[in-house]
Amino acid sequence: MAHDLETARHRLDPLIAPRSVALVGASERNHFAGLAMRALRGVGYAGPLHLVNPKAAAAFGLGAVARCSDIDAEVEAAYLCVPQGAVLDAAHDAAHDAAHDAIDAGIRNLIVVSGGFAEVGGEGVALEAQLAALSRDRGVRMLGPNCLGFRNNLASVALGSIPFIEQTPRPTIALVAASGSVASSVINYGIQQGIGFTHVIATGNEMDVTIADLIDYLTEIDEVLAIAVFIEGVKDPERFIAAAEKARAMHKPIVALKVGSAAATAAVAAAHTGAMVGDDCVFDAVCDRLGIVRVDTIEGLVNTAATIAATGPIARPGVTLVSMSGGVCEIASDYGAARGVAFPQFAEDTRAELAGQISVLGQMHNPLDLTGAAVRDEHLWATVPEIIARDPAIGLTLIAWNVPQVAEPSMPNTLDLIGKTVQNLATPALIVNNVEQPVNEYGRAYLASHGQLFSPPGLAHALDAVRGLWWWSSRLDRPAFAVSVPSDIKARPANERETLSHLSDYGVPVVPTRVARNADEAIAAAREIGGPVALKLLSGQIAHKSEVGGVALNLLGDQAVASAYRAMMVAVAERAPGAVIEGVLVSPMRANGIELLVGIARDPQWGLVAAVGLGGFWVEALADTALMLLPATREDIVTALRSLRGFKMLDGYRGLPEADLEAVADAVVRIGDAALALGDDLAALEVNPLFVAGSHVEALDALAVFDGNTP
Amino acid sequence: MAHDLETARHRLDPLIAPRSVALVGASERNHFAGLAMRALRGVGYAGPLHLVNPKAAAAFGLGAVARCSDIDAEVEAAYLCVPQGAVLDAAHDAAHDAAHDAIDAGIRNLIVVSGGFAEVGGEGVALEAQLAALSRDRGVRMLGPNCLGFRNNLASVALGSIPFIEQTPRPTIALVAASGSVASSVINYGIQQGIGFTHVIATGNEMDVTIADLIDYLTEIDEVLAIAVFIEGVKDPERFIAAAEKARAMHKPIVALKVGSAAATAAVAAAHTGAMVGDDCVFDAVCDRLGIVRVDTIEGLVNTAATIAATGPIARPGVTLVSMSGGVCEIASDYGAARGVAFPQFAEDTRAELAGQISVLGQMHNPLDLTGAAVRDEHLWATVPEIIARDPAIGLTLIAWNVPQVAEPSMPNTLDLIGKTVQNLATPALIVNNVEQPVNEYGRAYLASHGQLFSPPGLAHALDAVRGLWWWSSRLDRPAFAVSVPSDIKARPANERETLSHLSDYGVPVVPTRVARNADEAIAAAREIGGPVALKLLSGQIAHKSEVGGVALNLLGDQAVASAYRAMMVAVAERAPGAVIEGVLVSPMRANGIELLVGIARDPQWGLVAAVGLGGFWVEALADTALMLLPATREDIVTALRSLRGFKMLDGYRGLPEADLEAVADAVVRIGDAALALGDDLAALEVNPLFVAGSHVEALDALAVFDGNTP
Repeated sequence: MAHDLETARHRLDPLIAPRSVALVGASERNHFAGLAMRALRGVGYAGPLHLVNPKAAAAFGLGAVARCSDIDAEVEAAYLCVPQGAVLDAAHDAAHDAAHDAIDAGIRNLIVVSGGFAEVGGEGVALEAQLAALSRDRGVRMLGPNCLGFRNNLASVALGSIPFIEQTPRPTIALVAASGSVASSVINYGIQQGIGFTHVIATGNEMDVTIADLIDYLTEIDEVLAIAVFIEGVKDPERFIAAAEKARAMHKPIVALKVGSAAATAAVAAAHTGAMVGDDCVFDAVCDRLGIVRVDTIEGLVNTAATIAATGPIARPGVTLVSMSGGVCEIASDYGAARGVAFPQFAEDTRAELAGQISVLGQMHNPLDLTGAAVRDEHLWATVPEIIARDPAIGLTLIAWNVPQVAEPSMPNTLDLIGKTVQNLATPALIVNNVEQPVNEYGRAYLASHGQLFSPPGLAHALDAVRGLWWWSSRLDRPAFAVSVPSDIKARPANERETLSHLSDYGVPVVPTRVARNADEAIAAAREIGGPVALKLLSGQIAHKSEVGGVALNLLGDQAVASAYRAMMVAVAERAPGAVIEGVLVSPMRANGIELLVGIARDPQWGLVAAVGLGGFWVEALADTALMLLPATREDIVTALRSLRGFKMLDGYRGLPEADLEAVADAVVRIGDAALALGDDLAALEVNPLFVAGSHVEALDALAVFDGNTP
Repeated sequence: MAHDLETARHRLDPLIAPRSVALVGASERNHFAGLAMRALRGVGYAGPLHLVNPKAAAAFGLGAVARCSDIDAEVEAAYLCVPQGAVLDAAHDAAHDAAHDAIDAGIRNLIVVSGGFAEVGGEGVALEAQLAALSRDRGVRMLGPNCLGFRNNLASVALGSIPFIEQTPRPTIALVAASGSVASSVINYGIQQGIGFTHVIATGNEMDVTIADLIDYLTEIDEVLAIAVFIEGVKDPERFIAAAEKARAMHKPIVALKVGSAAATAAVAAAHTGAMVGDDCVFDAVCDRLGIVRVDTIEGLVNTAATIAATGPIARPGVTLVSMSGGVCEIASDYGAARGVAFPQFAEDTRAELAGQISVLGQMHNPLDLTGAAVRDEHLWATVPEIIARDPAIGLTLIAWNVPQVAEPSMPNTLDLIGKTVQNLATPALIVNNVEQPVNEYGRAYLASHGQLFSPPGLAHALDAVRGLWWWSSRLDRPAFAVSVPSDIKARPANERETLSHLSDYGVPVVPTRVARNADEAIAAAREIGGPVALKLLSGQIAHKSEVGGVALNLLGDQAVASAYRAMMVAVAERAPGAVIEGVLVSPMRANGIELLVGIARDPQWGLVAAVGLGGFWVEALADTALMLLPATREDIVTALRSLRGFKMLDGYRGLPEADLEAVADAVVRIGDAALALGDDLAALEVNPLFVAGSHVEALDALAVFDGNTP
């Protein structure tokens, strides 16, 4: 990013990389101010610093003024280190509203540490609204409230109270965290593992500046190779999508630790920063679509971001690992298989080449046990990785070897050989510790001298990170996702037949239906269709037909059709008296296929979301569905179908016809388009079942539900 | 264990705690011997040490003799540090066979480091057989071959080449590992985390002394609070079961890292120590029954063993955690929910008590965020844990606080308060680091001075370990498991009817059946039964009736029964010509229930194993079954049923009758007993389906398969 070109400056640069700063509430007795001063000094800030303290003319050995409006110089950003009750006044003073305007321009970037705003509810909400109004009216960018501020190690400036910790050289990861204490834990862990942070930014309540804004900002900074995010809830889904897509286009990975997968967590989060955690399964679908790598621990956040920053994208999912411990190979093999990290067996050519290096053929498994042979001939540490990294199935090479913590006189050559090997392979490569252990200065220097940015600590962390690495790599080339806005909104279908007809307009194959208004018409329709038929009640006022006796299946012959029609009318009259009955739909039965469920629902944050799964009673009980954001591509849908536990039902299981996945995906894409075309009032559109037999795909039943007018 | 009472000495004590030792192959040029000498000196061995070297009279600054038979003193154990080709001769010499017998008694305990035996196949197998014969004939206990020996930190003796590493004081965990290099990684990690090992024993090929023997031995040693095991395969299941049950009875946890869950791992393991890894799902069932805690990483092995050693059993699964970071509470809440660690919400009484301590009611969730209030009032670190640890749902209290690595002048009182708090709660309690970090000497001293043996590193490791802790605790009071040997073996049933009859003899409710030998008899039987019936071919020679057209369901009326009978005879004559047909079974159809599958099969290692699952086409495709060793208790079976993904089908889903789980469990127990009574030739006994509708439980179909005589 061109920091020296004023015109190219990102709108958040004056907030996150300010050239002049003020600390409001600067007093030695103020715990937060003390931490802020330590951070400013620790980071080596060399620009203008103004201390503001209404009660004393000096603090921390420097002079202080009483108010921001007394500062006679340009100040780009100020840290408001004052109690909740004083925040609004301090913010007005800093922004120089009419009451205090002493110089032309006030401070346009503020960081508010104090809590007691929206996150506590009640009056806090009102107070935050006043702060938001100030931000809006005066064009002031605000970080927080209820946030511990930031530290920018590239620009050597910090405005915040995250406890200072010495950085490692050459940071590669930017961290954005809703919680300052989590940010502290993340950087403590990262630095212990030899990983530095370009930026550490706590966002708190995200009243104005959000995580999405910061991702957008950080994406443009060259030194940032990965963005790690701790999220409680996403405030602005559209901006979040745009920022994530920008990062994806620039091959900058986003790794997210988002809480809220457990229902109970939502209550804690609401109390913490007032975040609405949202539907967690939908966030998984968001990550899937945007290539965000989701993790569930602080360690996973650091190790995954650092691993991806170190390797860049990989071309294939296959991983190989060499170790001189058979036990380590076995543990890695099991762990990888359980977590979806592929250790493909080597190709014949690879095995033939290996045979020239290792005499015992039995040892040519992947992961590869070099055995004691590597003690007797240390060159195996170079020759073997070179061979296996060229295997056509391999995208990443791991060398299990503990990063040294002190000079190891016993095997300096081996260490040097391994270090050189990882630099010169046909695939990205990493040294992996056998177990978790810190990387100290000696280890960092060893890695750095061999061009390695990072060594994942231990097999488990390494393989978890590698799984994320491939997840991210495999999503880089997908087309960009954009929230879809239909060009014109179609009229609401009034009943099932109209819903099927609407689907048909969008190219969804739909079962042929006929409307019958009495038993004779039903008989005639059934004869015309031929074979067994289904009768389904037609009424825009009854959503769940089967619950009122409005469905009869497998009817063959005039008598069966007529008596089913009459029984249905009696049942419905009893169970849904007063409902307007438009007749029945007569449609052919379908057999010898699989029934899928395609359910589209509106998520309050992320818009229309589609669930696809196997239909039917049993599988419904197992909740075996996959979620996608809409619009979804055919590829998304095929991937979703393949991810189902019951996928083998579609794959020619027990003599069933193998489903034509492209035809299914095409139908689902069209169902999604049909749903989007129904506009923002559509709450849900369900096709259940979507019948599939080979390439015969057909919607047999459909239901549309609208806000405020549910049948 | 009474080390000073010769009579009470365990038979492995002279091997693992020898009072006099010899090192065979003692030469400075011998890498393994050098490591062994370093270990002996490092561990502070003070007993008699004899060096044996045929080529030199001195090594390591000590005198040496040419052969063991030249040693003129009692030697309890010897480490054979010689190449593969010299092992047999060295072993014979050590054991003083006829050719070398110089003194009365040879050395009766040997450790063999060299590989190249059974694990490489071919001639190695033959060589190992010779070694085994020596062991058997001369009553010599052998550890290995292909093993790095042991180190006994309690008895201050080591015979082996696991690289020496300084121990922590007060070790609590014994480690037994198939692989010496894995053992190295385990102790490196453990000592980094402040955990010491009483014993470290590598077992290699387990030709004589097995992991089971060592568990048996270690269980009797008072200082051993937990036994950590790295397993490739279990050599002697019966001894393993006995040792594990002994440990369970003595409340000594076994934590096992067993490889082999991935099919590919088996090949690596076979090449490594020649172990057959066995059916991994069955080993899960073994762990379940014996209360062994299974983990999948080296870190998990250490952290779980150390956590259980530190807390002992807990009375309830509920866990509470206090932190001053809302973010940490959220991460823990999510992680716990995903991994099966329960953070129950607090009882009303607990909340009322908390209200006296914390003003903001919103913060009373579990995990509990103390917020900045704990900075202003550090006594919350004592008062709050005291209250929540008394909650009736809580079995364990976790306090999230980083173990100090240096004296922290900023909050010495807080640290001291927390240290005192964990000692004095109503439940076991642990301090948990927010993230993984080593525990150095300062931290160990801090923990020790507050009676804490261990602090799990980071939330994820802590919660994984806590899950294992409850798994173990909840299995302590189960009745002992013993391999069942039936008092008399029943005759093999010849066909389905006899199999059902055998089941009925054991009290299994069985559907009433009638045999029909022609269409008229079938009609008569169907009339007698009333309602729709099933016809099933009766032939001891056809296992899969449906594949030859031998099943007809839902037959109502004379004509349907007769034509189904005739069609079946035609089909069977075509598809299974020559099979002896004994007739058909006529039985009533059952409806409006759930079909379970009970499949019993013989595992080559662990004997009869029962799988229970939901039956039927769809769920079979999802492979939703739970495995148990036989004999199983009713409680085992109910637990297994509850563990099914599709359990809600049994729990009154969608108007189906709620299954009487006790009645189902009773039937499964009886099916198991019936299987055991069929003796060792029974290969499999399958009841499919076991019909369940409320408390109506009935075997509808059964098949027994015997070795060497499969129909």
